Amino acid sequence: MIISLKRDVRREDREHLLSWLETQGVSAQIVEGQYQTVIGLVGDTAHINMDLISGMDIVESVMRISEPYKKANRKFHPDDSVIRIREGVAFGGGEFEIIAGPCSVESDAQMETIAQAVKASGAGVLRGGAFKPRTSPYDFQGLHEEGMRILKEVRRRTGMPIITEIMNIIHLPLFEEVDIIQVGARNMQNFDLLKELGRIDKPILLKRGLANSLKELLMSAEYIMAGGNERVILCERGVRTFETATRNTLDLSAVAVLHDLTHLPVVVDPSHATGVARYVKPMALAAAAAGADGLMVEVHNDPPRALCDGPQSLTPEQFDDVARAVRKVRAALVPDAEG
Amino acid sequence: MIISLKRDVRREDREHLLSWLETQGVSAQIVEGQYQTVIGLVGDTAHINMDLISGMDIVESVMRISEPYKKANRKFHPDDSVIRIREGVAFGGGEFEIIAGPCSVESDAQMETIAQAVKASGAGVLRGGAFKPRTSPYDFQGLHEEGMRILKEVRRRTGMPIITEIMNIIHLPLFEEVDIIQVGARNMQNFDLLKELGRIDKPILLKRGLANSLKELLMSAEYIMAGGNERVILCERGVRTFETATRNTLDLSAVAVLHDLTHLPVVVDPSHATGVARYVKPMALAAAAAGADGLMVEVHNDPPRALCDGPQSLTPEQFDDVARAVRKVRAALVPDAEG
Amino acid sequence: MIISLKRDVRREDREHLLSWLETQGVSAQIVEGQYQTVIGLVGDTAHINMDLISGMDIVESVMRISEPYKKANRKFHPDDSVIRIREGVAFGGGEFEIIAGPCSVESDAQMETIAQAVKASGAGVLRGGAFKPRTSPYDFQGLHEEGMRILKEVRRRTGMPIITEIMNIIHLPLFEEVDIIQVGARNMQNFDLLKELGRIDKPILLKRGLANSLKELLMSAEYIMAGGNERVILCERGVRTFETATRNTLDLSAVAVLHDLTHLPVVVDPSHATGVARYVKPMALAAAAAGADGLMVEVHNDPPRALCDGPQSLTPEQFDDVARAVRKVRAALVPDAEG
Amino acid sequence: MIISLKRDVRREDREHLLSWLETQGVSAQIVEGQYQTVIGLVGDTAHINMDLISGMDIVESVMRISEPYKKANRKFHPDDSVIRIREGVAFGGGEFEIIAGPCSVESDAQMETIAQAVKASGAGVLRGGAFKPRTSPYDFQGLHEEGMRILKEVRRRTGMPIITEIMNIIHLPLFEEVDIIQVGARNMQNFDLLKELGRIDKPILLKRGLANSLKELLMSAEYIMAGGNERVILCERGVRTFETATRNTLDLSAVAVLHDLTHLPVVVDPSHATGVARYVKPMALAAAAAGADGLMVEVHNDPPRALCDGPQSLTPEQFDDVARAVRKVRAALVPDAEG
Repeated sequence: MIISLKRDVRREDREHLLSWLETQGVSAQIVEGQYQTVIGLVGDTAHINMDLISGMDIVESVMRISEPYKKANRKFHPDDSVIRIREGVAFGGGEFEIIAGPCSVESDAQMETIAQAVKASGAGVLRGGAFKPRTSPYDFQGLHEEGMRILKEVRRRTGMPIITEIMNIIHLPLFEEVDIIQVGARNMQNFDLLKELGRIDKPILLKRGLANSLKELLMSAEYIMAGGNERVILCERGVRTFETATRNTLDLSAVAVLHDLTHLPVVVDPSHATGVARYVKPMALAAAAAGADGLMVEVHNDPPRALCDGPQSLTPEQFDDVARAVRKVRAALVPDAEG
Repeated sequence: MIISLKRDVRREDREHLLSWLETQGVSAQIVEGQYQTVIGLVGDTAHINMDLISGMDIVESVMRISEPYKKANRKFHPDDSVIRIREGVAFGGGEFEIIAGPCSVESDAQMETIAQAVKASGAGVLRGGAFKPRTSPYDFQGLHEEGMRILKEVRRRTGMPIITEIMNIIHLPLFEEVDIIQVGARNMQNFDLLKELGRIDKPILLKRGLANSLKELLMSAEYIMAGGNERVILCERGVRTFETATRNTLDLSAVAVLHDLTHLPVVVDPSHATGVARYVKPMALAAAAAGADGLMVEVHNDPPRALCDGPQSLTPEQFDDVARAVRKVRAALVPDAEG
Repeated sequence: MIISLKRDVRREDREHLLSWLETQGVSAQIVEGQYQTVIGLVGDTAHINMDLISGMDIVESVMRISEPYKKANRKFHPDDSVIRIREGVAFGGGEFEIIAGPCSVESDAQMETIAQAVKASGAGVLRGGAFKPRTSPYDFQGLHEEGMRILKEVRRRTGMPIITEIMNIIHLPLFEEVDIIQVGARNMQNFDLLKELGRIDKPILLKRGLANSLKELLMSAEYIMAGGNERVILCERGVRTFETATRNTLDLSAVAVLHDLTHLPVVVDPSHATGVARYVKPMALAAAAAGADGLMVEVHNDPPRALCDGPQSLTPEQFDDVARAVRKVRAALVPDAEG
Repeated sequence: MIISLKRDVRREDREHLLSWLETQGVSAQIVEGQYQTVIGLVGDTAHINMDLISGMDIVESVMRISEPYKKANRKFHPDDSVIRIREGVAFGGGEFEIIAGPCSVESDAQMETIAQAVKASGAGVLRGGAFKPRTSPYDFQGLHEEGMRILKEVRRRTGMPIITEIMNIIHLPLFEEVDIIQVGARNMQNFDLLKELGRIDKPILLKRGLANSLKELLMSAEYIMAGGNERVILCERGVRTFETATRNTLDLSAVAVLHDLTHLPVVVDPSHATGVARYVKPMALAAAAAGADGLMVEVHNDPPRALCDGPQSLTPEQFDDVARAVRKVRAALVPDAEG
């Protein structure tokens, strides 16, 4: 941590700050300039209150050099984390999976049809929402308990692991047979929810918020990991910008940056990011080429009649085409990627 | 709602769409162009699934003309809502209040000191956080139950109404003596929380999310109002942009736009918006001049030692100066505004 | 400037860097930490190539502490600059003016009518565009030479100083009788244009680009000032965000931040920022209350028929109302502001 | 174009609008709703002044359905444009090229070394800046005439076509032997420059502005094309967002959206978009997988000593690795792409 003092600071005020810093367990080194004095803090500064210092009268600015996330930090955990879901299904460290399925669970028949189709095309995990965050209180909010029942049924019949979103911790008992719990973009900083999910023993897929930086995403992962649950999968799903041609702006450099900063696997959701079915394939291929550890793709047997997010859903045939092309890209880049 | 069809749509597909629209209780009128056909929907289209239509093969685009919010909509409720907190304290319809206090409740003495000071300077409501949303799990998270106890004590001793933030609906029993419940920016789209707050009988101050549009803010207010609780106060506290000179970018035109779209009162928080104490006064004055129905200002008796958000807190003396200047601006613009 | 080295840097590489830094005329001081070494540079670092250093193998990051703008910097020029246009018309240091007029110059009659009206209402400078930057090549681009002729005529007849936009330096001979030359938002980083304007002896009003930071705005002012022309007026006119309720998002905190960083006057344009006539008044009042040194307001005698930007133009009557209210706000805040 | 009228519009005002619309050469069709009347305009509405209509008293809103760009529009030109630079070097319609070279031209030796290296690795076009737009007036601005001389020399010696940026139309005579003229992001809406480039007979590479929408990019291309020069190559190079981990946020969905909207080729610049050398490879691969028609990559023989943008430059060895991997991705997706 680097503290720049204002010009013309009185010697006694500076001494006062230095002795306070010592009480915080860090050692301070001083760089005296012609116009300005800078203090470098050495030691574990993660617990130092940066706001407190920057609010002091004699301080011009404070900059943190080391990152405040620890458990998610690649510096302290150089190897990729591999999050295993079940035999043969894993994310990270070279393992790659496609999560596919409808936005919302609508019926037994719908889920069965889609599950069989995406499984045949190579999807490793089935998605489907039973609790849906919707901007309008008048929009369809999901089938809730009934949706959870359908998901579990299809899981049993097809043998596919399932992922579904949690919106409220009181629903946790319904998630017992769920293989991966999803935290949606709007809840990325619902810290009470994150803390509770840190106490359970299930992989969590954490979606990046619409206007959250990658460092904030890692801090939210840290909330879960600090509680003891280190099986976190990060998901890039587009950020909000001025551009309106796509629903959000997919930030694919997030894959490269996150692989730099953290050991956790990174999945990309081109369906929510673009909001347009015909842009899903190019963005899925781009994500695979960028090194993503997985994809999350919306598939519906009848997109025009889907109860939510129809316009961004692929048909099973379109999904099959995307999955094939993704495998080709991966095979070209990773010599021993699966066929 | 306006539906534009693609070129060269087959007559039967168009008829199929038209008959489906009739089943939805709206009437469709057709504008036939040289290259393109457009369908205008007449009637109550709030419950029509726009995504469903825009996903249909023959549809090029769909645009909504009327707004999907009803209870918050000024069109259906032309007069300003006045949210009364207690005798002499109200927001909206010409009534203006300043909410002041520290970011976090720290101790009985701190709250007592600040409350007496801001009361003397004319603040109508006392703020103070007991549950704090923090980006890092390692930062101070608030005093929780102990903080709530302190708040209530100070409320009794000073007679000031209090506002404090809720992060989890399970804490609701602790909020019984709270006068206004605050929903923070990060929870603006925590729809389960909003629904629960729609069932209680207390004013809610709803902060705009960092990257949420004003229409989304109104839809979130609608979640609360649809449940029966129509006492919602909106709060602009800055949005996230590329600019880093201030913590967020205060969008003061939100005051004018919201007054146009809704009858609900609008409060501005210049402390969180700018993140810098010396910018609070100019932005507080600007908000008052723009017609805001209130302000929310952070005040701390010892900002450099505040446990959170110190750099943006005013001292009681600075707050007194701001409150005086705000009254002058209001008096200049509203002939019969209070002194 | 602060340079953080990577871990485990070899002693000789570090020595190599230190000796190179000395050749650059700055002195380096070293802070040796447990894990990391930090170098503080003392002296004039404005000419040091930050990119060069941050690209070095052994360097983790580089941060600049002092600002790279000099002539615009308040640190080296503590008093407000007052830009005098003519006797009784000035911006900055307590002097405040309203610039008013139509988006485009359309005819002698139109300019005469509007000029007389806004002058009567207290406007100090007349605006009107003869060269118009338009997104579409098929939109009206201004009257060019004919527009310049009309502007000068009205200037002579009414005695009002005029401001108009330059888009191409080859048009400079046409600007001889212009009192203030405007650089539009899209040309804020047209550095060749800025350099040329640095060589002339006329006040320049420099508009902030749609997605430019305040520091970049100051660097663009520095381009003009470095050439010798120090009479620069800055103009905030809204930045681009995700919000669509207004054409741009007016960043009023820019007024406070710029007054902090620079001695140059700051003018606010609420017409372009909001794009909606009925939001101009509240934002003009807010700008005045925030301490702006002037306003720029679009006024048209027949807004619905204006050849560009009609929806954001005020009628002369509406402008008169705004100008009166602005004076009231200023009188309330600045005891000796004009009536 | 769709015009929504306000409620309770008088019959005569509506008739007045309708007869005016007829004089504009479009036919109007009316949809009469219970609360609202909507008018659909049929015919060529590109020249209709949307602002004029939306400013009328009786109009609530106006929406354009067809796009205002014509020459760049894929609807009127369904086949991909192929921009041929010389025998064997082309962009679009399946043709793909990598543009490579340093940010700035520094010396004969530097350009010769880099040109030979990137040519050997398969680059089709050599880049290098002689006129550099820099945020600070105190930064290196390019070698100007001397840089142009070096570029042309290397072009002759290596036989590679060259691309370089123009900042001011008065420099055009220096660009005679240049194969592609680049318009930088900051000049994307320098309309006077675009108009001049529309009159010459050379391919133009037009970079997207930092905060410009894809529709605005197409309107700027239209400025060039409207003048007669239809050989425009579009370039995505990142947009400005709140994220600071990369210099800009690369919007790769722009490739898919632009291929949808226009027949012009689309090139991606991962170097400027990310600003970090180690993120260039994943983003180059992603761009190729997304279907880009080319790449623009910064390569320098000695990145730490590059006079500008060193941190984002690849070494020739790194570039060779990127070019090989890009070919593999393209070969996997395009069966007959070059080896």
